[in-house]
Amino acid sequence: MSSSPPSRGRPRDPRSHEAIVGAVNELLAEVGYAATSIGAVAARAGVGKDTVYRRWRGKPELVFEAVFTTTDLAPTPDTGTLAGDLTALLQGLVDEFEAPAAAAALPGLLADFAADPVLRTRIRDHFLAPSKQRLAAVFERAAERGEIGSDTPVDLVLDTLAGAVFFHIGLVGESPDPQLAGRLAAVIAKGIEIR
Amino acid sequence: MSSSPPSRGRPRDPRSHEAIVGAVNELLAEVGYAATSIGAVAARAGVGKDTVYRRWRGKPELVFEAVFTTTDLAPTPDTGTLAGDLTALLQGLVDEFEAPAAAAALPGLLADFAADPVLRTRIRDHFLAPSKQRLAAVFERAAERGEIGSDTPVDLVLDTLAGAVFFHIGLVGESPDPQLAGRLAAVIAKGIEIR
Repeated sequence: MSSSPPSRGRPRDPRSHEAIVGAVNELLAEVGYAATSIGAVAARAGVGKDTVYRRWRGKPELVFEAVFTTTDLAPTPDTGTLAGDLTALLQGLVDEFEAPAAAAALPGLLADFAADPVLRTRIRDHFLAPSKQRLAAVFERAAERGEIGSDTPVDLVLDTLAGAVFFHIGLVGESPDPQLAGRLAAVIAKGIEIR
Repeated sequence: MSSSPPSRGRPRDPRSHEAIVGAVNELLAEVGYAATSIGAVAARAGVGKDTVYRRWRGKPELVFEAVFTTTDLAPTPDTGTLAGDLTALLQGLVDEFEAPAAAAALPGLLADFAADPVLRTRIRDHFLAPSKQRLAAVFERAAERGEIGSDTPVDLVLDTLAGAVFFHIGLVGESPDPQLAGRLAAVIAKGIEIR
């Protein structure tokens, strides 16, 4: 399929975006991470490779966004309490990690991160940025309610929440404890609350 | 080097054990995980391959023990407070993850775990068992002091601590925050304390 020349002003086609993201998730489940190349994704999505490269710098960025940012698209939780908001955020993370595409993507992504120091430097600012923004918004509301101090360390808590979910589901791969999000949220909320 | 026939009654030679563990750590730093085969380890350690297989079921078990159980050999911390004990446990984890061999081993280990469901079922009972015992001992003393309830969830907290350290150091690979162990311990201790 021929591609149009890149243009900053031209709006992105949301259908292409959806087709590409869908193709990534399908291929991951069908053939695994290694075989889910940019070329295979483009072919499955019915777009040119440069259409993919226009939006994503490379395979790790594409796969990460397709698999691990679905929760970031949902509205930031606002349940009225810190524990409630953290539970909702965590449940979103749990759902992401339990998706079949995640199991296929995780080891390959980790290997790519490990092998590429430049990619690693972008983890905080690019890959984790949407999650950090959501958690920061939750903390802002919790601080306004007086539940936590305004200096509560967002990065530390984000690492802890994501790390705990990764460890429990992504690594150990145990059958999902339906209470995991709530139990972990309760411990972390109590750990950072000031009242 | 010829090897003696396996015998349950014969005591393990600690020098062989040390030589093998040392060989694993050297090779990981020198040639990476993939090239650190059982054969290469045996040759470097000056033992037969079956000497290695007598002690470890396979490469993941060997590498994990050589790299990620150094802290389990230290005495279980007993500082007098839960936060102090958790800080010491976490600092041990941080030191393990910051070792050069860990950076080399982690992606390969994760890939091997992901590819082998049988290996995954052994994570809780075999790989994480020493760490869990140490944390359980810390919780027992904390419960005796009335700091926490006797039903505090060990697996959940272990996953959270290990996951947080893995995420912060093993994944994002940021320059070590010397306060990480203490800050994380403070949050978790406060999260599970009952007084």
